[in-house]
Amino acid sequence: MRLSFIGAAILATTINSALADEGMWQPHQLPQLESVLKEKGLEIDPKNISKLTEFPMNAVISLGGCTASFVSPKGLVVTNHHCAYGSIQYNSTPENNILQNGFLAKTYGEELPASPGSRVYVTEEVTNVTDKVNAHLNDSMDGNARYKAIEQAQKSLVAECEQGGGYRCNVYSFHGGLEYYLIKSLEIQDVRLVYNPAQGIGKYGGDIDNWMWPRHTGDYSFYRAYVGKDGKPAPFSEDNVPFSSDSFLKVSAKGVKEGDFVMVTGYPGRTNRYRTNAEVEHQFTEVYPKAKAYREQSMDIIKATAEEGSKARIAYESTLASLANYAKNYGGMVNSYQKTDMQERKDKLASELASWINADKARKKQYAHVLKELDSLIAKSQASSELDLILGYLNRSAMISTASRLYRLANEQQLPDAEREPGYQERDMTRFKAGMTSLSRRYDDAVDMALMAHFVDLYAQLEPQQRVASLDKALGLDKGYSKEKMAKTLAAMYKNTELNDEQVRLAWMDKSVAEFKQSDDAFIKLAVATYEQMRERELEDKALSGELNKIRPQYMAAIIAYNQEQGLPVYADANSTLRVTYGSVKGYSPRDALTYTPFTSLEGITEKFTGVAPFDAPAAQMEQITAKNYGSYEMASLGSVPVNFLSTVDTTGGNSGSPTLNGNAELVGLLFDGVSESIIGDWDYDANLNRSIHVDSRYMLWVMRHVDKADNLLKEMVIVK
Amino acid sequence: MRLSFIGAAILATTINSALADEGMWQPHQLPQLESVLKEKGLEIDPKNISKLTEFPMNAVISLGGCTASFVSPKGLVVTNHHCAYGSIQYNSTPENNILQNGFLAKTYGEELPASPGSRVYVTEEVTNVTDKVNAHLNDSMDGNARYKAIEQAQKSLVAECEQGGGYRCNVYSFHGGLEYYLIKSLEIQDVRLVYNPAQGIGKYGGDIDNWMWPRHTGDYSFYRAYVGKDGKPAPFSEDNVPFSSDSFLKVSAKGVKEGDFVMVTGYPGRTNRYRTNAEVEHQFTEVYPKAKAYREQSMDIIKATAEEGSKARIAYESTLASLANYAKNYGGMVNSYQKTDMQERKDKLASELASWINADKARKKQYAHVLKELDSLIAKSQASSELDLILGYLNRSAMISTASRLYRLANEQQLPDAEREPGYQERDMTRFKAGMTSLSRRYDDAVDMALMAHFVDLYAQLEPQQRVASLDKALGLDKGYSKEKMAKTLAAMYKNTELNDEQVRLAWMDKSVAEFKQSDDAFIKLAVATYEQMRERELEDKALSGELNKIRPQYMAAIIAYNQEQGLPVYADANSTLRVTYGSVKGYSPRDALTYTPFTSLEGITEKFTGVAPFDAPAAQMEQITAKNYGSYEMASLGSVPVNFLSTVDTTGGNSGSPTLNGNAELVGLLFDGVSESIIGDWDYDANLNRSIHVDSRYMLWVMRHVDKADNLLKEMVIVK
Repeated sequence: MRLSFIGAAILATTINSALADEGMWQPHQLPQLESVLKEKGLEIDPKNISKLTEFPMNAVISLGGCTASFVSPKGLVVTNHHCAYGSIQYNSTPENNILQNGFLAKTYGEELPASPGSRVYVTEEVTNVTDKVNAHLNDSMDGNARYKAIEQAQKSLVAECEQGGGYRCNVYSFHGGLEYYLIKSLEIQDVRLVYNPAQGIGKYGGDIDNWMWPRHTGDYSFYRAYVGKDGKPAPFSEDNVPFSSDSFLKVSAKGVKEGDFVMVTGYPGRTNRYRTNAEVEHQFTEVYPKAKAYREQSMDIIKATAEEGSKARIAYESTLASLANYAKNYGGMVNSYQKTDMQERKDKLASELASWINADKARKKQYAHVLKELDSLIAKSQASSELDLILGYLNRSAMISTASRLYRLANEQQLPDAEREPGYQERDMTRFKAGMTSLSRRYDDAVDMALMAHFVDLYAQLEPQQRVASLDKALGLDKGYSKEKMAKTLAAMYKNTELNDEQVRLAWMDKSVAEFKQSDDAFIKLAVATYEQMRERELEDKALSGELNKIRPQYMAAIIAYNQEQGLPVYADANSTLRVTYGSVKGYSPRDALTYTPFTSLEGITEKFTGVAPFDAPAAQMEQITAKNYGSYEMASLGSVPVNFLSTVDTTGGNSGSPTLNGNAELVGLLFDGVSESIIGDWDYDANLNRSIHVDSRYMLWVMRHVDKADNLLKEMVIVK
Repeated sequence: MRLSFIGAAILATTINSALADEGMWQPHQLPQLESVLKEKGLEIDPKNISKLTEFPMNAVISLGGCTASFVSPKGLVVTNHHCAYGSIQYNSTPENNILQNGFLAKTYGEELPASPGSRVYVTEEVTNVTDKVNAHLNDSMDGNARYKAIEQAQKSLVAECEQGGGYRCNVYSFHGGLEYYLIKSLEIQDVRLVYNPAQGIGKYGGDIDNWMWPRHTGDYSFYRAYVGKDGKPAPFSEDNVPFSSDSFLKVSAKGVKEGDFVMVTGYPGRTNRYRTNAEVEHQFTEVYPKAKAYREQSMDIIKATAEEGSKARIAYESTLASLANYAKNYGGMVNSYQKTDMQERKDKLASELASWINADKARKKQYAHVLKELDSLIAKSQASSELDLILGYLNRSAMISTASRLYRLANEQQLPDAEREPGYQERDMTRFKAGMTSLSRRYDDAVDMALMAHFVDLYAQLEPQQRVASLDKALGLDKGYSKEKMAKTLAAMYKNTELNDEQVRLAWMDKSVAEFKQSDDAFIKLAVATYEQMRERELEDKALSGELNKIRPQYMAAIIAYNQEQGLPVYADANSTLRVTYGSVKGYSPRDALTYTPFTSLEGITEKFTGVAPFDAPAAQMEQITAKNYGSYEMASLGSVPVNFLSTVDTTGGNSGSPTLNGNAELVGLLFDGVSESIIGDWDYDANLNRSIHVDSRYMLWVMRHVDKADNLLKEMVIVK
C-alpha cells in the first residue's frame, strides 16, 4: 500500500480523549488516535487498522452505497437486508416470493445471481494525489476551466490506475478540495445471493420503526463474491469460483455488553459538518421541507396508482421503501433543526470565525476575502434551487431519465473515451447497461406517467422566467397549461414510446446522435429537444462548482486552523471513502424522565407483533420466542437474546451493512440505522443524542440456528464462543 | 374512636412482605402490617395510622370525590388543581379568568367561596355495623325486601349517627356486603378558594398528557375550611372563622428520592378486583368500549355546538375535561385488557376456585350453589346493560335529569323523611339545591339539546321491545322515528321549558306531585309521563341488587378463604372510604428497552412548551426555568427541581389530592394520577406496571416561592427543610 502523508496542517491534530466519540476517521489517521483507542478498549494494535491490506481492514468491502464484510475464506459476505433488498426483490416472483418468505442456498449451486450491476469493491490502495491534481490548476482559470481541469486530472489518474483491468479507481476530494485521494479497489463482478431471512425478520417494523428505538429488525443478509478460476474478477459465469479474500471477520457469539468498546469500519456517504450558516439555513428551511413533501407526494401517487399486491406495486416496493426512508429522514432533520440551536451555533461559529480571522493581520489577508467570496457563490447556487429540485424529481420519471441518459450517451460517444463525461465512459458501460436492464423490474407505465404528471404540474407553477424554455416548448407549456390538457399530452407520450421495452433501451445504447434526432419516440424527442439547454444549465453548474472548488478549500483551511486552536477534532466530511469510527455501547435519554436502554430483546418482537406487516414475524420465530429457546445466544443480564443494540459511533448512510467490531476486531453486529434524534447528525454531532443502531451478532446467529436452520453457513463461518 | 374488630376470617390474614405493594388497606388493618411497613421505611408508629383521631390521619380529609389534607392549624387545605377545578371555574369570568391566570388570596378577606355544595369531610369514627345490618335480614326475604331492609337499616344507623347535626354519616358495604361500616365525618360547609396556580401550571399537558408519563403537571390548589365562631360547621358567613384542625401535615422541602418509602392516605372510589370472569368480560368487551364511544361522541357534539372561547364553551369546559378523562381511561382499559392475559387469569381463577370448592365436602356444601346463583344473577343484570347505558347518557341532558330529579323529589316528599330514597331526604337538600344552582354555570340550551338528540338517536336504534314504552310515547317514537322529525320535537321541547332558569328550578323543589302533573313544561311532562315505568325499572334493579346482596357476600367469603390459602393479600375493594396504601418511589419499563425514570424536571416543561394550551406554562415560570432559579428546591441527583414523581402505591380515582407522605408522615407530594399502563389497575394490580403519579412537594413550593410569590401561604405552613 502506498499511503502518502497528508499535509502538516491536518497532521498536527491532537486528539483529546475527553471528546465525544465524534469523527469518521481516515484509516491513516488512526495511529494518531492510538492512545485514545487503547483507553477506550481497542485490544488489537491500532496501527493494523490503518493498513488496508491487512486484517481487519481487508475484510471490509463496499457494495457501492452500502458496506459489507467477508465472513469466511470462501467469499461469504454479510451486509444489511436493506442493502441486499434489490437483489432479494430481483429474485422474487409471486410464485416464489423470497422477499416475503426468506431464502437460503444450502449449496453453492442454489445461490442466486444478485441484481444486475451488483459489485463488491475491496479497497486496496489509498494515495494522496493532491499535488497531482493541483498541478493542473492555476489561479487565472475561470470556474469552467477549473472544473474541467480537475475532472481531467481525475480522469487521467483513474485511467492510469485502472490499466490492466479488474480494478475500479476513483479520485475523492476531501475538505472541499483541500486534498484529493486516489482510491483503488478490486471490482468483483459476480455477486450472488446466499441467504436472506423472511421480510418479517429482515424488515421487522418496516417504515414505522425506521429511525426508531426500541428496534427489533434482523437487518442482515448474505452474499457470496465469485471470481474467475484465475482468481481475478470476471463477469458471472458458472465456471467462476468463490473469492478467497486475504482475511475475513470472525463472528462473535459472545457479543457486547453496555459500555463495551465498539468500532465501525465502512463507507459513510456524505456529511456536511463544515457547511456555512447560510448553507445550513437554506437546506433546512427550503430544500429538506420541499424534498420531504415531494417524496411523500411520490409515495401517495405510487400507492394510488399501483394497487397493493399488484405486479406494478411489487415493482415499486423498493422505490417506495427508499422514498419513505428519506421522507422520514428529511422530516426528522427539519424537526431536529427547529428544536435545537444548531442554526444559532452555526451563526455563532460564522461570526467567531470572522472575528478570529480579523484579529490577526496575516490571517485577515489570507482568509477575509474567502468568506466573502464563498458567501457570494453559495447565494448564486441557491438562486436556482427550487427549479433544480423540481427538475430532479421530474427526472425520476424513468422515461424522461432513460431517454436523456441514452441521448447523452450518443453525444458523449462522439468524443474520445477519456474526454467523455464520467458515467459515460467505456468503464461505465456495464453499470449503464445493468441500469437499463434492471429498470424492467422496477417500472410500470401508469405509475411513471402519474409521477411525471405531478412534477410537471409543480414545474408549471413556477414563474415562466424560472423555467426551462425548451422544456416548456416540448411539453406545450408555452401554449398554456391545464392538468387536463397535460394528462392528454402525457398519455400520448407514453403511448408513443418504446423505451419501456428493455431490448429497445439496450438497442438505443448503440445509436448515433443523428438516429436520435430522426426518432419519433416521444421521450427521445423530448430528450433531443431539451438537450442543449439542459447542457447549458449543467455547464453553469460546473462553472460554479469550479469556482467553489477554488474557494472552499481555502475556507476549510481556515476552519481547520480555527478548530485546531479550539481543540476540536478535525476529520474530513464523509465522501463514500473508507472510514473508521469508534465509540461504546450506550443508551440515551431523548426526553425528560425517559431512558432508552441499549439492548432490545426477543420479547420486544412479541410486544410489537400484530401478524400484519411490518409486524409480522414468521410463525417459526414466534414459536421459538414463546418457548424461550434462546440456545447459547442468551445475554444473561438481559435474560433473553439481544436483538439490536445502540452505540455512540459516528455513522451515516453508506455505513449501512458495516461490520461492528469489538476490541479484538471480531464481528459483534452490523450497523444498519441511526436513531431519529441523531438524524441531524450529518450536519451536527450531539454526544447526548447521536446513537447508531446495530443488529446484534447473537440475534443473527440465533435466527440462523433456531429459525432458518442455516447450519451450512454457521459451519462455514468462524464463530467465537 | 370506636373501632370494632372485623371477623376472624379476615383478621387471620398474614401479610407477606415479599408481596408487591398491592392493597388499599383499611386503617384498622395497619397494625397487622407493622413489620412490613417498618421494613419498607415507615418511621412513625404504624399503630398511629390506624387511629383516625390522631396525627396523621386526622389531617386527611375528603372533599367528596377527592381527597385533601390540612397543612396549617388554620384550616388551610391542599388538594389537586383538578379537584378544585369546579371552584376555580365557578369564580372565573371572562374579565377575571382565574382559571387561565391563577389566583392567590393574600388575606383571608380575599378568599373566594368554593362552588356551591363544596364540603370538607373529616372522618372521625369508623364502626363495624355488620351485625346491626344483618339483624334486619333473613333468608326468606326476596330481593326487593332484602334491598329495602338493608336500606332501612342503613338509614336508621345514619339518622342516629347524624343526630345533633354537623356530621355526615354513611354506611358502607365491604366485600359486597360481607361487612358494613358506619363512618361518621365532620361536615364543614364553608369552604373557600385560597390559591390556584395558572392553568398552564395546574393543568400543564392537559388531556394530551392525562394518564401519561413523563408528566409535568402542577396539579395542586389550596382551599380553606371555615366554621362558625363556636368551632362547629356552619354555612358560609362572613363571621365564620378558619377551622382549627386537631393536626395538620408538615410539608417537606427535602422531598423523596428513588427507592424511598411513600404512603398515601385517601378515599379511593371504587375498584373491582374481585369481580367474576363473566363480569370482567362483559365490562371490557361491552360496557367500556361503548361508554368510551358515547363519551367521545358527547365531546364532539359539545365542541361542534359551542365554539371555542364562547360562553357556552366555557360552561362546558369542566364537563369536557371529565368526558375526555374517562374516555381516555376507558380506551386505555380496553387496550390493556386486549394486550394482557387478565381475562385468561380471571377464567383460570374461576375454574380453580370451583375446583377448590368441589375438592372439599363441607366447602362444596357451603359454596357450590353460590357460584351458580351468582352467575345467574350477573347474567340477568347484563341483559339490559345496553339500554341502561344509553339511558344513562340520555340522562346527561340536564333538562331530562333536572325534570326527573325534581319530580322524584315531589314524590319522595310525600313520604316521611326516613322512608325517602337516599338523595331525597332532608339531609340531602343542601346538596340538591346546590346542584340546581350550580347547573347555571355548566349549561347551555343548544349543547344540551344536541346531546339529547344524539342519545335519543342511539336509543331509537334499539329494538322496540328493548325500549321503554312510556319514553317512546312521550317522544313520539311510537309513531316512527327520523332524525329530522326528532329535531323538531326537541326544538319545541327546549322552547317549552323553563327549567333552564335557576329560579324556576329552585321553585319546583317545593311543588307538589299534582302541580307537576298539571305543568305544561315540556320536560316536566316528559318526567311525569315516564316516571312510573322508570320507577318499575329501578325497583327491578333494586330487587336484583337485593338478591346480589345475599349471594355476593358468600362468594366473597369463598374468595377470601381461597386467597388466604394461596397467601394472597386480602383487602376490601375500594368504596370511597378512608384507606392507606404504601409503596416506594420507582420508575418502570412499559416496553422493551424503554425505561421511565421516576422524576421529571423543570427542563421537561421547557421540552414540551409550545406556548399553546395545554403546553402554555406562564412566562413568569419559563423565565425562572431558563434562569435555573432552582432556589432551595433543587434535587442534586436530578440537577433540577423535581416536578412529578412515580411510585408503586395502589390508588384509584377518589385518591386524587391525597397527601403523599414519607416515613415521618410529612407531605412530600400529592397523588393526582396513574400511568396509562396501570389504567386497568382497578381490576387487576400488576406490580411491574402499576404506578401512581405525584406532584412533588418541592415543585409546589418552588412555584409558590419563585413563580406565584405565595409567601403568605409558605409562611403559614410548617416547611421541613
